[in-house]
Amino acid sequence: MQFEFSAAELTEITGARERRGASDERIRGIAALAEAKAGDLSFLGNPRYKAEVAATKASVVLLPADHAGQPAAGQLFLLVDNPSVALARVCARIEQRLWPRPAPGIHPSAVISPGARVAASATVGPLCVVESGAVVGERAHLQAQIFLGHGALVGDESWLMPGVVVTAECVVGRRVRLHPGVVVGSDGFGYEFVAGRHEKVPQVGNVEVGDDVEIGANSTLDRARFGRTTVGEGTKIDNLVQVAHNVRIGRHCILCAHVGISGSTSLGDYVVLGGQAGVAGHINLGRGAKVGGGAAVTADVDAGAFVNGSPALPYMLERRIAVLRERLPDLFRRVDALEAVIADLKKLSPEGTDRKMPAP
Amino acid sequence: MQFEFSAAELTEITGARERRGASDERIRGIAALAEAKAGDLSFLGNPRYKAEVAATKASVVLLPADHAGQPAAGQLFLLVDNPSVALARVCARIEQRLWPRPAPGIHPSAVISPGARVAASATVGPLCVVESGAVVGERAHLQAQIFLGHGALVGDESWLMPGVVVTAECVVGRRVRLHPGVVVGSDGFGYEFVAGRHEKVPQVGNVEVGDDVEIGANSTLDRARFGRTTVGEGTKIDNLVQVAHNVRIGRHCILCAHVGISGSTSLGDYVVLGGQAGVAGHINLGRGAKVGGGAAVTADVDAGAFVNGSPALPYMLERRIAVLRERLPDLFRRVDALEAVIADLKKLSPEGTDRKMPAP
Amino acid sequence: MQFEFSAAELTEITGARERRGASDERIRGIAALAEAKAGDLSFLGNPRYKAEVAATKASVVLLPADHAGQPAAGQLFLLVDNPSVALARVCARIEQRLWPRPAPGIHPSAVISPGARVAASATVGPLCVVESGAVVGERAHLQAQIFLGHGALVGDESWLMPGVVVTAECVVGRRVRLHPGVVVGSDGFGYEFVAGRHEKVPQVGNVEVGDDVEIGANSTLDRARFGRTTVGEGTKIDNLVQVAHNVRIGRHCILCAHVGISGSTSLGDYVVLGGQAGVAGHINLGRGAKVGGGAAVTADVDAGAFVNGSPALPYMLERRIAVLRERLPDLFRRVDALEAVIADLKKLSPEGTDRKMPAP
Repeated sequence: MQFEFSAAELTEITGARERRGASDERIRGIAALAEAKAGDLSFLGNPRYKAEVAATKASVVLLPADHAGQPAAGQLFLLVDNPSVALARVCARIEQRLWPRPAPGIHPSAVISPGARVAASATVGPLCVVESGAVVGERAHLQAQIFLGHGALVGDESWLMPGVVVTAECVVGRRVRLHPGVVVGSDGFGYEFVAGRHEKVPQVGNVEVGDDVEIGANSTLDRARFGRTTVGEGTKIDNLVQVAHNVRIGRHCILCAHVGISGSTSLGDYVVLGGQAGVAGHINLGRGAKVGGGAAVTADVDAGAFVNGSPALPYMLERRIAVLRERLPDLFRRVDALEAVIADLKKLSPEGTDRKMPAP
Repeated sequence: MQFEFSAAELTEITGARERRGASDERIRGIAALAEAKAGDLSFLGNPRYKAEVAATKASVVLLPADHAGQPAAGQLFLLVDNPSVALARVCARIEQRLWPRPAPGIHPSAVISPGARVAASATVGPLCVVESGAVVGERAHLQAQIFLGHGALVGDESWLMPGVVVTAECVVGRRVRLHPGVVVGSDGFGYEFVAGRHEKVPQVGNVEVGDDVEIGANSTLDRARFGRTTVGEGTKIDNLVQVAHNVRIGRHCILCAHVGISGSTSLGDYVVLGGQAGVAGHINLGRGAKVGGGAAVTADVDAGAFVNGSPALPYMLERRIAVLRERLPDLFRRVDALEAVIADLKKLSPEGTDRKMPAP
Repeated sequence: MQFEFSAAELTEITGARERRGASDERIRGIAALAEAKAGDLSFLGNPRYKAEVAATKASVVLLPADHAGQPAAGQLFLLVDNPSVALARVCARIEQRLWPRPAPGIHPSAVISPGARVAASATVGPLCVVESGAVVGERAHLQAQIFLGHGALVGDESWLMPGVVVTAECVVGRRVRLHPGVVVGSDGFGYEFVAGRHEKVPQVGNVEVGDDVEIGANSTLDRARFGRTTVGEGTKIDNLVQVAHNVRIGRHCILCAHVGISGSTSLGDYVVLGGQAGVAGHINLGRGAKVGGGAAVTADVDAGAFVNGSPALPYMLERRIAVLRERLPDLFRRVDALEAVIADLKKLSPEGTDRKMPAP
């Protein structure tokens, strides 16, 4: 990635509240505080790295507004509301330079059915297939080797990366990013067991993906048995995630990699699922519920609750159990010792007792 | 999805044993009992929703043959052997209308090697690649952007959806559905460790997928080291499932999403694996064995057995352990208390004992 | 797979130290000892199958140099340093015959941007897209339907299988194999939470894959937030693996299927991760660390250590806990019994004690 910013440009992009010091360097790289060198931009995103600010060789450093230190000679501190957000804005500018919006138009190698509607401002790249009745919105970008089925819709300014498949009748909102290999609208997994065979239940619903959603590489979203599988506005889904049929995902949720959500389950807004978490079918996760990585959710989760473990329990209980689990060998030894002492005490006791001890 | 059925058509499709009441509405939607409105078809698939039948606004309702209630005015009850199966048949009819079999023929943008054999009744869609020696059976459908390697076979009436890859020498049976992004025949994961490096063990076997199998989006099946990796007739595999080299999967099995099966493991007929379950290599799961979601199977499972947990144990034992696990904090407190009581009793005992208690 | 070897050819390929017996059969198959028949090659890869050597019908058997037995009539024993390695060499020869290196050149259906550089000895198969600034090395093979983004590099003799996506600026080393559907360079999963919405942190780094790496079908590797996500030389990655942004994987590691590695985590050389294992973000796994299948690593792991379980613990401790876990129902019964005995003893004790027992 090749880019170049002046200190003045960075001040403008980050909306810095205060400049401290000065740098003449052209900024051509970004690096963590400890690894940065002259010509790099760095930032204090996490307070625990505060001690590294004094020693960093970065030419420009993004710092929280209340940061007290002074820059080295030839170094510029930019004080901002949120250094991570400020950095994100710099990276957004770099991204625009790296991947400028392509010129509108349809590549001659794309296969567009007569009944499809592609906005004049949209870009359909090489070797895409757009079937009849499909609609591609304004300034949308089908990068390359995309499949868009009959009657599928892609909203304005969405970006579908190479190898994405959106099957018939599915709807993708505006400003959505679908990473390579995403499948929107594979069949739900539904069968009836009849006479020793699994008879297919055809899946005739669709998938609707809201505005500003991002879906990671090779994730799969199944179409509903009937009705809709939905992903709410602003939700972000990582790579290799499975969303089953008739699932309803709220707005502004976070689903980390390898998460699996079973059929007809419902997630409220702002739900967060850690990596490799699994959620059983037909249950509800309330608004703002959080699920730890690898957890297996088998029952409803209240709004705002944080659960973890397999099967999932309230986070603090699970944490305590995880600690006690390590002490199980010790606990067994302690119970062995208690039984031995009791056996001795019973011998000493003049009358003994009738209670039977189980074999250790 | 746009469709329309008359009450008479639904009676015919579902093979209803009895009609109760009548509806003049054209049926244009399907919905759950509680959400249905006039013009919708609904059904009682699960007895626990029985109470919702009386209040549903659906115009036509599929009910079990022994259902006792009476329809509202303008409402038709169709009594059938199995409402879910009856609904599946209606959906199959909708599916035919939504996705009619495409006209036979090879799209001009497809790249077909001279030595490939494509049946005249088959459809090869846009931007497919079919290499030499590959065979596409009667009425088979390669939808779009499919790759079929040298000598690969696709049986009659199978449907390969966009982006499917079937590598050289692999065999796909009849009436198989491969969802978008499925890979049949990636290399098995095998290396020999020689002089500090992992030396590849070439994988020169293949994969054979039986008749009536369905495989979900982005699932991967590895070719055998030598010999075959096999999936038996009628087995259904969900999305993002991994099947390693030389695995043998029986007939009519169910593998839910994110399941992983390690090399050379064998599954009997009618095995069921819950989502995110993992199975170690070189073991056997007997006919009809069931594995809970997220379970880790590390040893053979008897025919008909149901295991769960990580490592997997018999289901009822695992369930009991899961309950006791939540009571671990309490158990540690109880043992602390017992030790304290014993210490007191020993002080009271005239002679004491020699037994040492471990430090708590 | 059709192939044929003479006994002399197998002797040469395997570099056998000693021939014992003789066979006139042409070798046309490979099979395990118990399943082999005349015309097959077999091998003793694992000493526990030693007893099967005497009964095998294989015409040629690869055996360790110290094997004592004698072949049957018409049977040839080839004594080698490592039968598994010897077999791998035979399979490599078969692989060359099955999949000969294709002729160099660019298929007319491929879409190559003017600014791309494809070596004259490279093969770019049908329906590939190679964007401007991308470089394809000597004898590299882009099989079919590949996407190579702006400025991406593919090293000499690498093989990219159908449907692989390598996004802009990413680097793939020499002799790398990327299986179907691999995505190198999807965006890292990073957002800042601002005013109730997840604001995207653009990911402007890249991915660098070292020489002799192999990556399994549909695995995904995210580009760095800035800087690089790296996979060291000789590392082997199985199917459906997720590698997050800024992860650093050492040389000669093994990552089994469904493994997930969270952002900024670092793996030393020779690390081994079992199937479905997950590793949290921002931690370090030392050189040669091993992680069991399904384990959840939430803290640093020392070089050479073997951990297992969820959360991961030292392997022997975890194994012991797994055994004790099965005995939890018994432990609860034992504590119940101890409490009952203590209650009796206290009644018998002339003075009793003041200690309170918790309710069972």
